[in-house]
Amino acid sequence: MRMRNKPWAMDFLNEHGHIVDTDSSYAGNIQGFFPSKQSIHMEIGTGMGSFIIEMAKRNPGINYVGIELDKNVLIRVVEKVKEQELDNIKLVLLDARKLEEYFGEEEVERIYLNFSDPWPKNRHEKRRLTHEGFLDGYRKIMHREGYVEFKTDNRNLFEFSLRSMNNYGMAFEEVILDLHADEPPENIRTEYENKFSAQGNKIYRLKASF
Amino acid sequence: MRMRNKPWAMDFLNEHGHIVDTDSSYAGNIQGFFPSKQSIHMEIGTGMGSFIIEMAKRNPGINYVGIELDKNVLIRVVEKVKEQELDNIKLVLLDARKLEEYFGEEEVERIYLNFSDPWPKNRHEKRRLTHEGFLDGYRKIMHREGYVEFKTDNRNLFEFSLRSMNNYGMAFEEVILDLHADEPPENIRTEYENKFSAQGNKIYRLKASF
Repeated sequence: MRMRNKPWAMDFLNEHGHIVDTDSSYAGNIQGFFPSKQSIHMEIGTGMGSFIIEMAKRNPGINYVGIELDKNVLIRVVEKVKEQELDNIKLVLLDARKLEEYFGEEEVERIYLNFSDPWPKNRHEKRRLTHEGFLDGYRKIMHREGYVEFKTDNRNLFEFSLRSMNNYGMAFEEVILDLHADEPPENIRTEYENKFSAQGNKIYRLKASF
Repeated sequence: MRMRNKPWAMDFLNEHGHIVDTDSSYAGNIQGFFPSKQSIHMEIGTGMGSFIIEMAKRNPGINYVGIELDKNVLIRVVEKVKEQELDNIKLVLLDARKLEEYFGEEEVERIYLNFSDPWPKNRHEKRRLTHEGFLDGYRKIMHREGYVEFKTDNRNLFEFSLRSMNNYGMAFEEVILDLHADEPPENIRTEYENKFSAQGNKIYRLKASF
């Protein structure tokens, strides 16, 4: 998502270095960012953060990392994490193309992609977070028992992702073509999910491992 | 699909031995059933036959084989083939579990599955035509450049099939989650397809190769 540019954003983030890593200080040592060493689950593209914050509240035994490229968006997530005093969620200002420089091999046990930018034009397909270029990076940092969990309401992006992840050789653990038809109790709705579902869109979900 | 039992069905089919093979006379020699040796495309479960008959009309350079287990259903297809005087379509009364006994290795270049019985109960999942037990048979008779083309409006069957075919190691060439949203001109609608689409159901299509 895009937010209006805030000239003070970087200063704000740097003042909250205990919640957000803006300069890859914890690259190669993400566990050192948390009070306890626990499994790492990651969301790429946090948006307003409601998904990952709710996950962190429900699962104190997991360390959550939110990856976000837009500092103006990250401000809002930092504010929420601070307000809720959660110590098992940290944020990283990072381009998802650089995941493998930041994280070690097999360091991440789950990757969440929620309502990622569909980049509808064919010439932008490499920017889609389920393009093989990104899958390469996920594979390198993913634990052997880990998986990617991907949700979207965008039909074209889901069609693309099924093909891309299948062609990459990923194994589908779960495919759901209408998540809200029989919503699993563990599902946490994102802001986008509520909005798009209210518009009558189907919500798709895929779990796939390497 | 189920039809009322017709006691005269078998006699009728046997009288039309130039259109339908009821006793595996052409097992191992399907090309001998046709006037010309041409690529073999197959539909498993012909229903009323409108799909495969229209395909045969449009593509005289391909030999079409319709596999159907129900002799009462086959009668209707035989009647249509006879009426239209098509010589590039033949029917076989056969259980799809026995495909590999009937056809040779790599003999079939395409397999169509249209609105197959969803067998919704978990304990019946082995009966679904995209279950790995059937995929084993398709793989053995499929040409190396061939593929399976599968259409359904049944969400649970499509979810199952995406998983099953992915887990089997098949490569997805195409995934469409709403075929009629932007209907390709080559699409031939089956009787079920028109009916279910009119009810507001999405039509799903998958092309996958071994």
